[in-house]
This record gives sequence, C-alpha cells and structure tokens, in this order.
Amino acid sequence: MAITQDNIIKALSKVQDPDLKKDLVTLNMIEDISIDGNAIYFTVVLTTPACPLKELIKNDCIDAIHKYVDADLQVFPNMTSNVTSTRSTAPLLPNVRNIIAIASGKGGVGKSTVSANLAVSLAQSGAKVGLIDADIFGPSIPTMFNCEHEQPEVKEVNGKNIIIPIEQYGIKLISIGFLTPPDNAVVWRGPMASSALKQFIGDTDWGELDYLLIDLPPGTSDIHLTMVQTIPVTGALIVTTPQKVALADAQKAVGMFKQPQINVPILGLVENMAYFTPEELPDNKYFIFGEGGGYKLSEKYNIPFLGQIPLVQSIRESGDNGYPASMKEGVTADAFKDISEKLARQVAIRNANMAGTTKVEMIN
Amino acid sequence: MAITQDNIIKALSKVQDPDLKKDLVTLNMIEDISIDGNAIYFTVVLTTPACPLKELIKNDCIDAIHKYVDADLQVFPNMTSNVTSTRSTAPLLPNVRNIIAIASGKGGVGKSTVSANLAVSLAQSGAKVGLIDADIFGPSIPTMFNCEHEQPEVKEVNGKNIIIPIEQYGIKLISIGFLTPPDNAVVWRGPMASSALKQFIGDTDWGELDYLLIDLPPGTSDIHLTMVQTIPVTGALIVTTPQKVALADAQKAVGMFKQPQINVPILGLVENMAYFTPEELPDNKYFIFGEGGGYKLSEKYNIPFLGQIPLVQSIRESGDNGYPASMKEGVTADAFKDISEKLARQVAIRNANMAGTTKVEMIN
Ligand SMILES: Nc1ncnc2c1ncn2[C@@H]1O[C@H](COP(=O)(O)OP(=O)(O)OP(=O)(O)O)[C@@H](O)[C@H]1O
Ligand SMILES: Nc1ncnc2c1ncn2[C@@H]1O[C@H](COP(=O)(O)OP(=O)(O)OP(=O)(O)O)[C@@H](O)[C@H]1O
Ligand SMILES: [Mg+2]
Ligand SMILES: [Mg+2]
Repeated sequence: MAITQDNIIKALSKVQDPDLKKDLVTLNMIEDISIDGNAIYFTVVLTTPACPLKELIKNDCIDAIHKYVDADLQVFPNMTSNVTSTRSTAPLLPNVRNIIAIASGKGGVGKSTVSANLAVSLAQSGAKVGLIDADIFGPSIPTMFNCEHEQPEVKEVNGKNIIIPIEQYGIKLISIGFLTPPDNAVVWRGPMASSALKQFIGDTDWGELDYLLIDLPPGTSDIHLTMVQTIPVTGALIVTTPQKVALADAQKAVGMFKQPQINVPILGLVENMAYFTPEELPDNKYFIFGEGGGYKLSEKYNIPFLGQIPLVQSIRESGDNGYPASMKEGVTADAFKDISEKLARQVAIRNANMAGTTKVEMIN
Repeated sequence: MAITQDNIIKALSKVQDPDLKKDLVTLNMIEDISIDGNAIYFTVVLTTPACPLKELIKNDCIDAIHKYVDADLQVFPNMTSNVTSTRSTAPLLPNVRNIIAIASGKGGVGKSTVSANLAVSLAQSGAKVGLIDADIFGPSIPTMFNCEHEQPEVKEVNGKNIIIPIEQYGIKLISIGFLTPPDNAVVWRGPMASSALKQFIGDTDWGELDYLLIDLPPGTSDIHLTMVQTIPVTGALIVTTPQKVALADAQKAVGMFKQPQINVPILGLVENMAYFTPEELPDNKYFIFGEGGGYKLSEKYNIPFLGQIPLVQSIRESGDNGYPASMKEGVTADAFKDISEKLARQVAIRNANMAGTTKVEMIN
C-alpha cells in the first residue's frame, strides 16, 4: 500500500485500546503523523501516563503499519498521554482532571497507606498528583510524608485566603495536621470538620492536576457527605482487609457511594493486609485477617479487583518514617505500581463510558 | 488475745488493701463477723469481683488473725464484692455503677475486640456487664457477639419507648447494628448519630450494672462529645497499637479526655497487636506494627499500662465468629482476664480517690 498519511491512519484504525474497546483513531489518540522516507513518526496520546498497556499498544501500532502499509517501514510511535476528564467544565477545580476518593467504612484497614503509596506511584508514572487528607481527627498523611512540621503558606486572591499545598516527593498535600499542633486533639462536631474539608477543596491552590486523591476517614458521615456535596467525585476506591467485620463496613461504604442521590462510580477494590509472610519462612502465608474476603466482596458487587497488598513490616515502617514504600524499588513498590496502573485505567474507562458525576444536593 | 469481735476487728485493721492503701476496716470492707468456738467467719467485701488481689487479701486476713488473735484459730473469710461507684445519685442510670469508655483516636486498633473481650472477662468474674456499641457507622459488636440478626424488643414506660438490650453470653448489648439491616449504610450527619447514642444511653433498660462499657468509634468528634455531654463517664480506657500513626491518634484521644471542660479520668492503656508469633516459630516475635510504643505512651502521660495483647489469628477469628476469645480457656483469655482485673482495680482506685465525673455542658 502507498505510504501516505491516509493509509497510516487506516492501519492505526485497526488498533484497539483494549480497555476502551475502540480503535485509536476513533478515540482521537493519534497525532502528528509524519513520513520521512522509510521512517514513520506519530504520537499516541494515551489516557494516562500510568497506562499499563503502553508497550502493548505501541507494538500493536508497529505491527499494524507493517501489516497494512508496508512491512519494511521503520515505525517510531511517540507514546505520550493526556489524562482524560469529565470535569473540564466543573465550576470548582476545573483544572483537576480526576478526583478519587479512597474509602473503607472500617478504620485502620490502610486507606492512608494506600492513598500515600498510590499517589507516589501515579506521580512516578509522570502524572500530576494531589492528596487531600480528609481525616480531620486522625490525620496520617503528614507523618506518612515526613512533613509533620510543615506549615502551608497562605496567599490572598481576590480578598480570599488561599492555602498553598505542601509539596513532598512531587505530590501536593493538604492536611489538618499542617494547621494544628500534633499533640492537640481536634474535638469538633461535624460542621467544623466539614468546613475544614471545604477549605481543602475550594480554598486551596491545587493548580492543574491529573489526579486528586482524597484519603477519607472511616465511617459514612459528615466528611463523606460534605465531600460529595462540595465536589463531583470522579470515582471511589475501596480499601478493605479480608475479615468479616472489615468487609461488613466496606460494604457500607459501597452502599453509600451507590445510593441513588450520591451515585459515585466505584473504580475498584484493594485488599490490604492480605497475609503475612515471615522472612524466615518465605513459603508460609499467615492469613491473620482471613483469606480472600476482598476478592469475594468485589465479585459480589461487581467491582474491579485491583489487587492485594500483604502485611509487610516495611510498609508500616515506611509509613511511620514518612517515606512511602512505593519509593523504594522492590516487590512492594511493584504491587502498588500495578494497582496504581489499574486504577488509572479504571478512571480512563469510567471517563470514556460515563458522564461526569453530579454534585450531590442536600441529603441531610 | 481473747477471741472477741473487737479483737478480730483490730486484727483485720492491720490488713491493707494494697490498691486503696487503707486498711479493710477503715474501708468498711469487713462484715458479718461470727465466732463459733475455734472457727472464725467473716465476709470481706471487695470493690470488684474481678479483684486480682482476692487470694492475697484473703491470706492476709487469715495471717493477721493468727498473728494478732490466736495462731490456732480456723479462719474462714467469705470473699464477696460490691462494686464501688461514684454514680449512685446520678440523674441518668444511677443503677449503673461505672461507665467505662473505650477509645483510641485511630481506627482499627482493636477497640471493639478489647471491649468485647473485657466485657466477657468481667462478666466471668461475676460482674454485671453491659456494652454500648457507640460506633454508628461501623458497628462491630453484633458480629463479635454472634447476634447480628437479633432485634431488641421495645417496651413502653410512662409513654416513652424503652429498648431492651440484647443479652448474649450474660452481657447486655445495644448497637445500631440491631436496628438497621446489615448491608445498609447509615449515612447520617453527626446529630442523627448523636441521637442514636443518646437513646442507647437514656432510653435503654440497662437495669443494674457494675460496668457499662462504651465501645467508641475512631476520632474525637460528635459521638465522643455527645457521650460526655449525656452522661458522666467514670473513666476511659485507651487502646492503641504500637506504631507512630496510632500513637499520634491515641495521644489525641488522651488529650480530648484531659481537656479541662471534659475531664474524664484515664483508667489505663492497652497495647494491642503488639507482635506476631507464627506457630512454627514460637520463639520469634515479629513486631510488625513496632515495639513498645504503647508502654512509652503510657509513661509519657502517666497512665497505668494494663498490658499487651499480641496479634493472634484466633482473636480475629473469634471476632468474626462471634465468640470472643476470652470465652475459650488459654493464654489469650488469660491475657484479657488479667487486663480486665487491672481495669476493675483502676476503677476501684479511681472511685476511692476522686469525686464523680461531672457531665460536660455544651462545648460546641
Ligand atoms: N500492608 C500493610 N503492611 C503493614 N502495615 C500496614 C499495611 N497497611 C497499612 N499498614 C499499617 O497499618 C496501620 C493502619 O494503616 P492506615 O493508617 O493506612 O489505615 P487507615 O485505614 O488510613 O486508618 P484510619 O481509619 O485510622 O484512617 C498503619 O500503621 C500502617 O502503616
Ligand atoms: N490482637 C489481635 N489479634 C488479631 N486480630 C485482632 C487483634 N485485635 C483486633 N483484631 C482484629 O483486627 C480488626 C480490627 O479490630 P477492631 O474491629 O476491634 O478494631 P476497632 O478499633 O474497633 O476498629 P474501628 O476503628 O473500625 O472501630 C478486627 O478484625 C479484629 O478481629
Ligand atoms: Mg487514615
Ligand atoms: Mg470498633
């Protein structure tokens, strides 16, 4: 076939995005085709830099051009990304492409740990990432990012005070922990906590972000309601541990997001503290908190199961030391990277197939 | 010395209660002395049936009579108890002798597990025990007591609906889990949750109790404030795990109870999930969540350290199965029994040395 722009486009229209189940041309993912003798250049704009299928799609493009245009061409796809969004016309934070809530129902299952590590993994992939610590009474993010003593600057914009998030490891962070002394209990009723969250969303200079994660407190109360009433949330990630009492609460969190008035899509489920393996007995798995409960719950509610994280002392240590486990190469970082890619993928799928979430009007 | 009532009283006035640091006669703990030839009978009324010093005090009584009255007497102390209280004139629940809040700040550290097991241990000692599950959004008590499908009866008293607690394993229980379907999320703002708690305290037929435990949710918010504003709490038990992020939140819980307007005495601290020991390596302790943090915190705030509970799969399993670990004989039950005795002791010490807690007036 003749080596023309048109024929290259025809060839690339045979390549499918396996997630979005449409071809790259229809998806407007091909840009800047140029032909230089035997060499073909073009750009593939993926839906996320954390795309786990990058290599697969790249090879599919090369193969398609060899097959449908000319087997002797040298093909140089330039793989980039442009994170998709359903929020670009949102009144609040239109430059934040996706807002992802991390919830569990149950306390202590690892919401903050998962939030911190996914933020790091997503940022490492090249995405612009922010993280709101919405746990007003038990903020863990400052400790987990080793910035407990930072104090955010405040600037005035149009007579309004705007908080500049703390930036650590390339991630923009806000937490009540930055605004109150560490040994002080914040003993507030719901409305005070809610107004702190509203500030973290609306009065904070988030700039342009691909993913803004919101690390929620346990429960299904004021903070959760205020979140969905303040901003349309792209989707929720459920974190659970495998035992019955945790699954019961995870189920309640799922139920909350699925309530017709709330209606936040659930992007996936992560099972944390899945098992413990002592270094001395590398083949033994101790299912201290039970076995397989996360997977079963994801099946019951038809939620994508994004993976398991075992109970690993170094995950806890990195949390306490303020240096998320994802930052050190190894199996733990790989596990979080894998989950972050699957999450980014679910965001892209959600954005391709569903309208933007609607902000919730008063419920109660 | 002559074998008379007076001389027996004199002898027993040499016996100290090691906790209360006064002698048994001054403490009004001796009743019903009778002399039958060579045999001496009397009753020692301890401050709690869970008194860990029962045998010690009993032997001290026998020794004192042998020493100060006659070495040949046969002494038969009848050890009973009458749980002390500072609440007998309280307007709400005057027949509930002691109200103990179980708090942590942090989620998932084992508040509910510790509450359930201490309730069982205290009841096994002979005390009358009730347990309020104050976690409206993540109630675990129905599962942990295998009564998820129970529905409490309601009776009308003076035109008011009064809830009859569910009784399981000899413990009176109330939980939002008895009143809502298990897969339903209770998505309420604070005031609704607070009014549920008020009902659990004021509109529930608790009858006469030695100890009413309140299993709190994580955080330091509406439920906590409503509790201290509804009823004067005898004291609080802090549960924590050893890692930094948990200790930080435990510290916030301590800070809350110590606030001058709240001022609830802290009875003790329990370190849960202290270490893990695989069955195959009984000498290895894996300090997955860190080492010694609970003890350090108790020293910092001068709180009685009541003990450690290791991470044990059967504790989790008994939670999920609804049959608290304390009910099966073994090291775990012994550990909880020991903590329950220390707790009961701290309650007695507190009641002997401090005035009743005052109900908190509106803070915010
Ligand atoms: N996979 C893991 N292996 C070892 N420790 C873990 C793991 N996940 C979390 N942890 C540790 O468990 C504790 C609880 O985790 P984390 O604070 O992330 O839970 P959470 O759900 O955010 O809790 P909360 O409900 O209080 O906000 C932390 O000390 C954390 O470091
Ligand atoms: N010592 C232990 N060994 C093993 N598992 C434990 C231990 N203590 C608690 N667990 C388990 O850990 C999980 C969390 O415990 P629990 O529900 O009692 O914590 P919590 O502080 O009440 O949590 P929440 O903040 O959600 O109310 C439960 O599944 C429980 O069975
Ligand atoms: Mg957290
Ligand atoms: Mg609990």
